[in-house]
Amino acid sequence: MDDTRQPALGPDFRSDNVGAASPEVIEAIARANRDTATGYGGDTWSTELQQRFSDLFEARARVFCVATGTAANALSMAAITPSWGAAFCHERAHILTSEVNAAGFFSGGGLIVTVPGPHGKVDPAALDAAVAAQGKGMMHRSQPASLNLVQATDLGAVYAPAEVRAATEVARRHGLKVHMDGARFANAVARLGCSPAELTTRAGVDILSFGMTKNGGLLCDAIVVFDDEVAARMAWQVRRAGHVWSKGRYAAAQLLAYLDGDLWLRNARRSNALATRFDEGARGIPGVSLWAPIEANEIFLRTTPRVMDGLERDGIRFVRRSADMARFVCRFDGTEAEIDALLASLRRHASNG
Amino acid sequence: MDDTRQPALGPDFRSDNVGAASPEVIEAIARANRDTATGYGGDTWSTELQQRFSDLFEARARVFCVATGTAANALSMAAITPSWGAAFCHERAHILTSEVNAAGFFSGGGLIVTVPGPHGKVDPAALDAAVAAQGKGMMHRSQPASLNLVQATDLGAVYAPAEVRAATEVARRHGLKVHMDGARFANAVARLGCSPAELTTRAGVDILSFGMTKNGGLLCDAIVVFDDEVAARMAWQVRRAGHVWSKGRYAAAQLLAYLDGDLWLRNARRSNALATRFDEGARGIPGVSLWAPIEANEIFLRTTPRVMDGLERDGIRFVRRSADMARFVCRFDGTEAEIDALLASLRRHASNG
Amino acid sequence: MDDTRQPALGPDFRSDNVGAASPEVIEAIARANRDTATGYGGDTWSTELQQRFSDLFEARARVFCVATGTAANALSMAAITPSWGAAFCHERAHILTSEVNAAGFFSGGGLIVTVPGPHGKVDPAALDAAVAAQGKGMMHRSQPASLNLVQATDLGAVYAPAEVRAATEVARRHGLKVHMDGARFANAVARLGCSPAELTTRAGVDILSFGMTKNGGLLCDAIVVFDDEVAARMAWQVRRAGHVWSKGRYAAAQLLAYLDGDLWLRNARRSNALATRFDEGARGIPGVSLWAPIEANEIFLRTTPRVMDGLERDGIRFVRRSADMARFVCRFDGTEAEIDALLASLRRHASNG
Amino acid sequence: MDDTRQPALGPDFRSDNVGAASPEVIEAIARANRDTATGYGGDTWSTELQQRFSDLFEARARVFCVATGTAANALSMAAITPSWGAAFCHERAHILTSEVNAAGFFSGGGLIVTVPGPHGKVDPAALDAAVAAQGKGMMHRSQPASLNLVQATDLGAVYAPAEVRAATEVARRHGLKVHMDGARFANAVARLGCSPAELTTRAGVDILSFGMTKNGGLLCDAIVVFDDEVAARMAWQVRRAGHVWSKGRYAAAQLLAYLDGDLWLRNARRSNALATRFDEGARGIPGVSLWAPIEANEIFLRTTPRVMDGLERDGIRFVRRSADMARFVCRFDGTEAEIDALLASLRRHASNG
Repeated sequence: MDDTRQPALGPDFRSDNVGAASPEVIEAIARANRDTATGYGGDTWSTELQQRFSDLFEARARVFCVATGTAANALSMAAITPSWGAAFCHERAHILTSEVNAAGFFSGGGLIVTVPGPHGKVDPAALDAAVAAQGKGMMHRSQPASLNLVQATDLGAVYAPAEVRAATEVARRHGLKVHMDGARFANAVARLGCSPAELTTRAGVDILSFGMTKNGGLLCDAIVVFDDEVAARMAWQVRRAGHVWSKGRYAAAQLLAYLDGDLWLRNARRSNALATRFDEGARGIPGVSLWAPIEANEIFLRTTPRVMDGLERDGIRFVRRSADMARFVCRFDGTEAEIDALLASLRRHASNG
Repeated sequence: MDDTRQPALGPDFRSDNVGAASPEVIEAIARANRDTATGYGGDTWSTELQQRFSDLFEARARVFCVATGTAANALSMAAITPSWGAAFCHERAHILTSEVNAAGFFSGGGLIVTVPGPHGKVDPAALDAAVAAQGKGMMHRSQPASLNLVQATDLGAVYAPAEVRAATEVARRHGLKVHMDGARFANAVARLGCSPAELTTRAGVDILSFGMTKNGGLLCDAIVVFDDEVAARMAWQVRRAGHVWSKGRYAAAQLLAYLDGDLWLRNARRSNALATRFDEGARGIPGVSLWAPIEANEIFLRTTPRVMDGLERDGIRFVRRSADMARFVCRFDGTEAEIDALLASLRRHASNG
Repeated sequence: MDDTRQPALGPDFRSDNVGAASPEVIEAIARANRDTATGYGGDTWSTELQQRFSDLFEARARVFCVATGTAANALSMAAITPSWGAAFCHERAHILTSEVNAAGFFSGGGLIVTVPGPHGKVDPAALDAAVAAQGKGMMHRSQPASLNLVQATDLGAVYAPAEVRAATEVARRHGLKVHMDGARFANAVARLGCSPAELTTRAGVDILSFGMTKNGGLLCDAIVVFDDEVAARMAWQVRRAGHVWSKGRYAAAQLLAYLDGDLWLRNARRSNALATRFDEGARGIPGVSLWAPIEANEIFLRTTPRVMDGLERDGIRFVRRSADMARFVCRFDGTEAEIDALLASLRRHASNG
Repeated sequence: MDDTRQPALGPDFRSDNVGAASPEVIEAIARANRDTATGYGGDTWSTELQQRFSDLFEARARVFCVATGTAANALSMAAITPSWGAAFCHERAHILTSEVNAAGFFSGGGLIVTVPGPHGKVDPAALDAAVAAQGKGMMHRSQPASLNLVQATDLGAVYAPAEVRAATEVARRHGLKVHMDGARFANAVARLGCSPAELTTRAGVDILSFGMTKNGGLLCDAIVVFDDEVAARMAWQVRRAGHVWSKGRYAAAQLLAYLDGDLWLRNARRSNALATRFDEGARGIPGVSLWAPIEANEIFLRTTPRVMDGLERDGIRFVRRSADMARFVCRFDGTEAEIDALLASLRRHASNG
């Protein structure tokens, strides 16, 4: 069965959220389905989760399971942005482009100020200038409050630890708290081969959206808070947002399974590897270029509508972002054959360009 | 394994959310775990769900899967209560007592006005008086906007169709929209033996929180909207609230399984039957009385701290609501033996009273 | 000229806001109308105001001029009530009955919990019980955050300093911040003969709505904050609410004139004296009773619709609050003759009762 | 007396809000100060105001007096922008740069999307592109809802009627409602010599912030609503925002005086004429250029820090907007001598450049 109306369908690169969930995660749900358990996070799975994340990030962490990445991002940003505050993010950041004002809604009107930078990364100097221009302390100006970094970025690149630190140091100097939108955090860690702490707790991040959905999860992501004061408020904020499950064990069990045996990194390595396979295979193709280096599992192709038409005729499924940008997302449950089919189709149509 | 720290534990009546999920629901998740599917509700499961609910309620319905009952209630109430509005509910209503201001938050400050009534039911005459007293059209008064009915009620009673209509007719006369908090809607339908439509679309309900979590679900409830204009806004409101799952098939599949073969009613009949078994068994016990007739799966016992102490010593798990109210919730996955143990313990301690 | 459509009109007791402004206040506006002045509170009038209020309340105070008492109350309550918080107030409190959810709106959904008590005063024991019942720390309960006291009360009574302290001590014990709605603060101080500090800074009040409009002002009230942390946030909150006048000198000049030569107390003594004149004159009238002792400038008469009809036929203007409650407000610009006319009319109709 | 700490002070061009109020407006307050009047806009002044604005704009208008231009703008934008909506405005628009998120706060998180254009005017083609790019109907995108035009612009230019229509036609085509921020509406009308209706009701404007403060008012601006449905909601929204004065006559009387004998246009002509005098006088000065043509009462000078230093040494007061932008605002109560002093100082320092 397929859920679309088109007749013959080829490889599906529309998003990592069109893919399946890791069987291990679903099995964990099934395994948790016995006996009774205290509700609202009072269960043993949820308790264990707190310790597991503290270990993973080498710092005291408080974890809140929430339904979606949008919820994780919006609640995180709202927790560090007052209604009179300005939140700085890259001009392609997901909170700005794809979450229907969720951050603004939860923060009671916090302003989003965009910052440029290559490949979806906030440029530290541009951030410095933007924050300075925002007029801290000037009573008629939205007050600089927070920074949002997307890891991997919305163009598929990855911040190295030093790059995260460069941005957070600017933030810290101006008194901003830092949120990392880690919808594809696993892909970044897997690519960099560093520890999760190097990208977060040791790099100036106060609060993290820890994504699972796009990398083998199904209905659960997490907010990980490294700042005690923010965490104390968050406990109420998530509840008031309808994001605390009464049968919390079924959410916590998913996240535990996701960490067990490094499933999260194994999945990310698979989708990353598919993207890398594309990257290597595409190098010889004339007229094919990228919006950003392929460092996670996403490919942003700079191409023409004619080439996009050709790919679609071949049954390749992807997203047209604009007349010259096509997005292809590799999934942990994708295959090398699909990449090869994409490459073949691309070769055919690009060379005809 | 048990998730609490106490050594020997007996039957668990703390809530229906301490219980398990129906295996059918988890199996449906597993079955949906194949191929790719369009994200954000564009999948075939979600599409089918729309039709299934329209059929179930014999009217055009728009369904939104959300993470929790709090989300369902708060988003529903906010959809029919402007920030200057007054929402009427029973003085024991869940939105008032147990959702940390979620309805107020999502509505931008909507006021909750309480109405008395027996057994957790809004009394129509009291509602009429309360709405009249609220001062519709008077510019300094919060404006009457909405009515919240809880089915089954927060004291475990059930509104018969005529009782729903009696309340909604008052609401309609005053121009209020009507939300039904159906966290235990299945229990009410199962008890009454009527059709879902008789309690909702044919009884003046505009929007329904359709609970699954407490009755065999795990991480998903639903908002069912019968008013087209409200539904159009809701599509944005749920998204902006972080309550639209990208992998929507895994939510929709749960709800489909819940409806398949009337699983929802079969589960509710089991928990109802356990409550009835208690009801019948408790009749002979001296000094035992109820806060409301047992009509769903909840038992609100009027008793003494001494009796509660005795039950706890016997390992019975329940919730002390106040010095003279103890709540026991029967679960679809509970057993007759557990009820009998509760009755035996109660008999022992009540007679010593 | 009169602004109503009725032909012959007698004494006007509808509210203190139907009355005039003190000429001194308008003259102060005219006097401030020269030269240029730094905007947004950077002018010398505004600067002087800060010191004047600190002196008046014998503590460091930060004053914010705002347009209305509703703004003062709502911004104050929101400053001490998070969106997941519960605000306690008397069941007749103005923020609940007469401000169209303003406090809920500005706080992002803060819940209002009512507390009974005689004559519009929050009863300390009832407050204690209400806060305890609210379930501090229980994750599904709106969290106790703030207390609102109305001085003079919404039934025209006055809290003595010891009564304020009795209530704020309960609040303090439970960790609540305290707001005093002083729409008629001047009337209370004038009646009690105590110092402003005795009713506020020395009695546990954190933030005060200092009313001027009802007592000789026209378009300006003030928020007086005694808590530095609250004040720091308030500076942004008032601005974001559109309640910071760019030509702030014209607001500050009004408040300065209001304090100069104790105009505020002189005005209050006049309206209080009229109320007292009524009180004394009414004692001999059969069948006349009061909802609360007359301690400020308001009279809440317990009477019948027939008597109210009679008063209206005599041209007396007042507000029917309910079938057995008629409100009469004495104004600083009212006259003894008006009181005598009211008494005469009342005597005529009450004795016919 | 002067309110600043600097010793010798020259002409003050910091803003039009540092200036005085028209004596006529203050006299109107004084004249209204007699008898009693129904509160909350039920008075005859407020009633007359409704008709006067309907006449002025040649369409049914509903007027709401509010305390500040920020309140007028934010409440207006919130009335036409849902929390999931996108509001389009010029990248220098006051709602974005100078109102501490008020529009975002009142709309519950509405996103501000900036549009470029010359001299602070929204370019219709750029607007068209921006709205198209916003993704109407795409569920993850903030939904295009409203357009904000500033008249005169934040660089001191003026939209001709045809320019307003060009922008509102784009808006209309995309289903956006249109707000005009008329903080300096009088200056625009005075400059253009057209009717108020030509710039608003006949040019596609749905709601107008009608500024008085900057042009001879003191503590009052107005929202003028031309859309009945928006007006009906606004009645509650202003009240809930604490922006409905109980003694409404004192606000309405100001606005009536402002319209009487075209005081608003006479004042605007005076400040405009001073700006024109500058414009003509500055033409011969080498190295002096403007950010936008001088069409209202503001002058945005493109110059150097050295020149700004020189002006300041001469006692000229103005605002440094950036290293190469100095703002000078002419006031209705300014003088030709002040302009001449500015020109003389500028000549001196610019020629030394």
